[in-house]
Amino acid sequence: MATLGDIGVAAAINLLSAFIFLLAFAILRLQPFNDRVYFPKWYLKGLRTSPSSSGAFVRKFVNLDFRSYLRFLNWMPEALKMPEPELIDHAGLDSAVYLRIYLLGLKIFVPIALVAWSILVPVNFTNKALELQLKNVTSSDIDKLSISNVPYASDRFWTHIVMAYAFTFWTCYVLMKEYETIASMRLQFLASEKRRPDQFTVLVRNVPPDPDESVSESVEHFFLVNHPDTYLTHQVVCNANKLAKLVKKRKSKQNWLDYYQLKYSRNNANRPMMKTGFLGCWGEKVDAIEYHISEIEKLSKEIDEERERVVKDPKSIMPAAFVSFKSRWGAAVCAQTQQSRNPTLWLTEWAPEPRDVYWQNLAIPYVSLAVRRLIMAVAFFFLTFFFMIPIASVQALASIEGLEKVAPFLKPLIEMKFIKAVIQGFLPGIVLKLFLIFLPTILMIMAKFEGFTSLSSLERTAATRYYLFNLVNVFLVSVVAGSALDQLNTFIKESANDIPRIIGVAIPLRATFFITYIMVDGWAGIAAEILMLKPLIIFHLKNFFLVKTEKDREEAMDPGSLGFNTGEPRLQLYFLLGLIYAAVTPVLLPFILIFFGLAYVVFRHQIINVYNQEYESAAAFWPDVHGRVIAALVISQIALIGLMSTKGLAVSSPFLIALVVLTLWFWRFCKARYEPAFVRYPLQEAMMKDTLERARDPTLNLKPYLQNAYVHPIFKGDDDEDEEFHYKLENETVLVPTKRQSRRNTPVPSKISGGSSPSLPEAVPEHSVP
Amino acid sequence: MATLGDIGVAAAINLLSAFIFLLAFAILRLQPFNDRVYFPKWYLKGLRTSPSSSGAFVRKFVNLDFRSYLRFLNWMPEALKMPEPELIDHAGLDSAVYLRIYLLGLKIFVPIALVAWSILVPVNFTNKALELQLKNVTSSDIDKLSISNVPYASDRFWTHIVMAYAFTFWTCYVLMKEYETIASMRLQFLASEKRRPDQFTVLVRNVPPDPDESVSESVEHFFLVNHPDTYLTHQVVCNANKLAKLVKKRKSKQNWLDYYQLKYSRNNANRPMMKTGFLGCWGEKVDAIEYHISEIEKLSKEIDEERERVVKDPKSIMPAAFVSFKSRWGAAVCAQTQQSRNPTLWLTEWAPEPRDVYWQNLAIPYVSLAVRRLIMAVAFFFLTFFFMIPIASVQALASIEGLEKVAPFLKPLIEMKFIKAVIQGFLPGIVLKLFLIFLPTILMIMAKFEGFTSLSSLERTAATRYYLFNLVNVFLVSVVAGSALDQLNTFIKESANDIPRIIGVAIPLRATFFITYIMVDGWAGIAAEILMLKPLIIFHLKNFFLVKTEKDREEAMDPGSLGFNTGEPRLQLYFLLGLIYAAVTPVLLPFILIFFGLAYVVFRHQIINVYNQEYESAAAFWPDVHGRVIAALVISQIALIGLMSTKGLAVSSPFLIALVVLTLWFWRFCKARYEPAFVRYPLQEAMMKDTLERARDPTLNLKPYLQNAYVHPIFKGDDDEDEEFHYKLENETVLVPTKRQSRRNTPVPSKISGGSSPSLPEAVPEHSVP
Repeated sequence: MATLGDIGVAAAINLLSAFIFLLAFAILRLQPFNDRVYFPKWYLKGLRTSPSSSGAFVRKFVNLDFRSYLRFLNWMPEALKMPEPELIDHAGLDSAVYLRIYLLGLKIFVPIALVAWSILVPVNFTNKALELQLKNVTSSDIDKLSISNVPYASDRFWTHIVMAYAFTFWTCYVLMKEYETIASMRLQFLASEKRRPDQFTVLVRNVPPDPDESVSESVEHFFLVNHPDTYLTHQVVCNANKLAKLVKKRKSKQNWLDYYQLKYSRNNANRPMMKTGFLGCWGEKVDAIEYHISEIEKLSKEIDEERERVVKDPKSIMPAAFVSFKSRWGAAVCAQTQQSRNPTLWLTEWAPEPRDVYWQNLAIPYVSLAVRRLIMAVAFFFLTFFFMIPIASVQALASIEGLEKVAPFLKPLIEMKFIKAVIQGFLPGIVLKLFLIFLPTILMIMAKFEGFTSLSSLERTAATRYYLFNLVNVFLVSVVAGSALDQLNTFIKESANDIPRIIGVAIPLRATFFITYIMVDGWAGIAAEILMLKPLIIFHLKNFFLVKTEKDREEAMDPGSLGFNTGEPRLQLYFLLGLIYAAVTPVLLPFILIFFGLAYVVFRHQIINVYNQEYESAAAFWPDVHGRVIAALVISQIALIGLMSTKGLAVSSPFLIALVVLTLWFWRFCKARYEPAFVRYPLQEAMMKDTLERARDPTLNLKPYLQNAYVHPIFKGDDDEDEEFHYKLENETVLVPTKRQSRRNTPVPSKISGGSSPSLPEAVPEHSVP
Repeated sequence: MATLGDIGVAAAINLLSAFIFLLAFAILRLQPFNDRVYFPKWYLKGLRTSPSSSGAFVRKFVNLDFRSYLRFLNWMPEALKMPEPELIDHAGLDSAVYLRIYLLGLKIFVPIALVAWSILVPVNFTNKALELQLKNVTSSDIDKLSISNVPYASDRFWTHIVMAYAFTFWTCYVLMKEYETIASMRLQFLASEKRRPDQFTVLVRNVPPDPDESVSESVEHFFLVNHPDTYLTHQVVCNANKLAKLVKKRKSKQNWLDYYQLKYSRNNANRPMMKTGFLGCWGEKVDAIEYHISEIEKLSKEIDEERERVVKDPKSIMPAAFVSFKSRWGAAVCAQTQQSRNPTLWLTEWAPEPRDVYWQNLAIPYVSLAVRRLIMAVAFFFLTFFFMIPIASVQALASIEGLEKVAPFLKPLIEMKFIKAVIQGFLPGIVLKLFLIFLPTILMIMAKFEGFTSLSSLERTAATRYYLFNLVNVFLVSVVAGSALDQLNTFIKESANDIPRIIGVAIPLRATFFITYIMVDGWAGIAAEILMLKPLIIFHLKNFFLVKTEKDREEAMDPGSLGFNTGEPRLQLYFLLGLIYAAVTPVLLPFILIFFGLAYVVFRHQIINVYNQEYESAAAFWPDVHGRVIAALVISQIALIGLMSTKGLAVSSPFLIALVVLTLWFWRFCKARYEPAFVRYPLQEAMMKDTLERARDPTLNLKPYLQNAYVHPIFKGDDDEDEEFHYKLENETVLVPTKRQSRRNTPVPSKISGGSSPSLPEAVPEHSVP
């Protein structure tokens, strides 16, 4: 095990590399030609323009003002300066709340670290258990500060148990406060002044097919009957996936056309030629510009036809719709209630933000959803525990013998010494690394297959799975040696009694490993994040080869986004390590603190200046974050039970089991107490907001505002065709004469539903004129 | 192990005792003086009067028509004759659906038994594994028909696995059909023609305290603001527990007065005297009639005072209310939505039927509820696994030595041979038996402490716990020898792999034990149920000593009720045994079939003629029943995995694990698909029913109908005071002037809420006049 000195050296190296990253960032960000890489958010908001518009030529690319280099760490206080409300306004609630996760880490671990260092470290250090052990086992200084230094069956262990209680209560207290704050932030955000279409809109899925009526008519009739006072309008969902594909294809061709035209304008001598075959490698040679112009024309025609088809063909209308109401109250009622006798039909839920909708999944029927969920659960189980099997076989293939067997003609090449070394040394590792890099993408595809309807829920599901995968394949595998499959085998074969013991014993031994891990992944990794090497290189490549207009330059920027599905699960590992080692090896805590502090500043800077959130889910992810911190608490308590039972203090188990029960109870309590704020929308709030709005603007007509809020993004172009299409869509939804026989026989519309007869609903609420 | 002959003898004995019970019942029920014991339901419905009103004196008590004795099994077809809709009308949906559990048993097990006997029994019987074993182990004929007769690692086991799949699919299919049927029965029942107050009413709990307003005003304002179009009226809940106690006491005194007056009227010579002390054993001697008259007067005065206090004292108003709406739609919306920003305030749920309300628990605040739930969960855990500890200590006390130590003066008595034998032989057993008899009561008290607000939910919770207790302490303890505590110890110490093996190995060995159990508990026990020995004896005792008027006789009847909390968990054991042994020892199945058939007939008779349901929950218990049958399926599959792994066919485990996963998935699917019908009320149904009702009776005024539907039963007497009290209560809820300052400043009532200003809401829906 490492001594304090070793750790110090490692810390110095990692601090140095982190420092180098920060320094490189500080220098690069001051160069004007990098401005769009490090401040894209401001460009997207239209608050910043290219600094290259004036001044000397050199100044356009390099910052020559040496004074600015002296203040190279200036970005840190700048990042911290923006107050939270402004941050919410600037970057959205999701980002602001995401930052609070790091703050939560600081709030939890600063007091824990102080208490642990002032109580546990002296208690551990003043023992001599390790000195008394055999001298040939070199025990490090770090171990002297840890629980390993306390002798077998010592009464001092009760300090650790009391501390475990104290840490649990403190963590739970902070978690509860935080949940409360964020729930009220969310409600405030949802009920904020700004009117948003999703406040009035409900997503209806699984509209039952009706032989007499189209989906649109069916939806309109259903809601006119069942929500007579509040129903306003609706938009059916079209299956425009093919259309979207065609439009994307046309855009790509257009890009190429632009490229060739640029090329031609630079060099008027020879017209650019190209081959029509695969990747332009073979096939007929044609004039590139002409070819692309004709291709684009062809595609435009196809797109028009497809658009026509989408509008006219009833088969392209999916059995789902966005239904808008006259008031927030009406939408809240509809989203929270069951509509039909069959609970799998007319499923209603809050509509996600228009940007947040994942259009492809809106039409999956209920039974298929249930089956997909089962398949994905099983697939994820196999992915977690058996992913090493295909990787091992690919690794075998990637070995010298494997390659020679598959491709004997490569033999002379492979036998070369240098290439042999590369294959033997790197290939197997690269296969695993590639898998881990693609894992979030794989998990995202799995979530998409499962049928979630909003980007935010896709990311949340992928994040949960990534967390579980990390827990098993990073944490458990690091603690107890052996692959995940070995673990599974062990845990099935060992008794419920022994599992905590296996983990508990290994925990103190792995402290130095995890300290190193934190320094590499948490310190240097976070510092590398701010440098944004990949977007930097790509931007300059694009800038050099493709960009010709200001718009192109805008498109060349890749601000990226927070990436909740990868960032949050990785971050949770630090909570887990901190809570587990708080009572065992408090030495680890300062390293965690530095991580949380550094990451907070870095991500605050990134959120303010770089990331461009694609959607806004109003912090819908917080229950997951909360749940995982509690899971980390429970894991830490179970590990402590196991550790204590090997330290001769099995008598303490009931106390720690009681702590586990209390923690789980706290989780359930919080779930019931705060989670509704993230799932439902209280009627009181909705009514208050409605009343306020009506008082301010009594003549408000919501219908035009909501009519086209939820149109497939492909129809949201700005050319004339789209306008025309909109008009058609509108007309289509407006004319809903009843065709069905049976409906004609239903009793007169109810008296409560009053004026709103089954024809066109009035846009103005019927009682709005006093 | 028992041979087929032994089983035959046991079967004969039990069949005979069942037959004797049935015969005794057949004879006793024909005697007119037992009429009220065996047909109380009809008396309570007023459809039957005492048969003793006419005819000869002897005929009053004994049925002399010998022909009627010949048709002594006539009640069976009679019980089966009543069609289901009539049964629902006669005894309620709860009872009708309860009977369907037995039918479900028949539907599941008749085809399974046929298939098992035609395929599994020949497959098992044509082996010679048992003959080849050591001859001194006498193997029974039954074992030859069971899986024990198949040799180690035989391929024939695949038949059993295929059968396990077939049985699972069949059971799931039947369960799904049944769930569907019952969900639609429930919805039909809820939306039935008859208007019921709970269709329009929502129970609101945790009304936040308001310094300026009373609870009643606070409720009225809140719902006028947040449900302006549908709110009709409300009734606050008074804490009348003390009043109820006083009234009960007065009633008991009144009974005694009646008794003494009856005694005096029979024997005018001497006025009855009594002592005032404890149990009338010591204390001053007084004239009993005068004493009771004065006591009753005193109590009446106290009751009046208390009544006054309940009405006037704001402290006796609990922060809960029954809020009624103008339409079913309004109530459905309010019950399903979250009202306030803080999800622990203004909790709304469907109001239970007025009879079903458990008034004592209506005022428990949210945090207290969460704590109580935790305490009860922990208490139930200890009750299940550690109940033997106090019982063992009481048993030790109840031994000879224990008694002699505690009460040395009893020594001469105890040393007597007969008494010694009684103490040694019976007392320890009686202690355990007493505990088991009181267990359902204990579980019921636990559920009451936990704070459920309706009798039906109390019974459901108690039933779930009783089922778990039985599963651990009857099933597991019978299968694997040793107490529940030993089991717990084993299951903690053994690996997850070994637990199924331990159960699986023991299953075939315990077949004969369970066959005997089924015959004793299932056959003879059910037959004894119909004889109703206890109510019979108590009725005749009461009839002889106390009854003087027709009303008294009515009160002396004890029809009892279904007792869901004890009956259903016991019944579930048969599903468990049937499913476990279907693939292992199919011989057991016919015994189960006889149980289900007999019990169905017996309980149908009892429900038609005897039981008087106290409340109607509209089959709200079905999700529990469904869940437990699925739990039985999963347990049977796990046991089969264990059994197969010891039979040399561990390779089949993946197939059976897949079956477990599929079954659990089916459970989740059904939960999502059908359970909402038992928790929520679809708006479409509500709207349909509202529209129908309004079309039929456009001038309907619901307010008087709902005004007093949910008054504490103690106020539902028929004397003048109560009337007066009602009037006061009404007045109280009607006058709700706004006292609060801040409310005066709120904007003008919204336009949608139209006519319903914050004063008294109109009883007639505002748009009801066309």
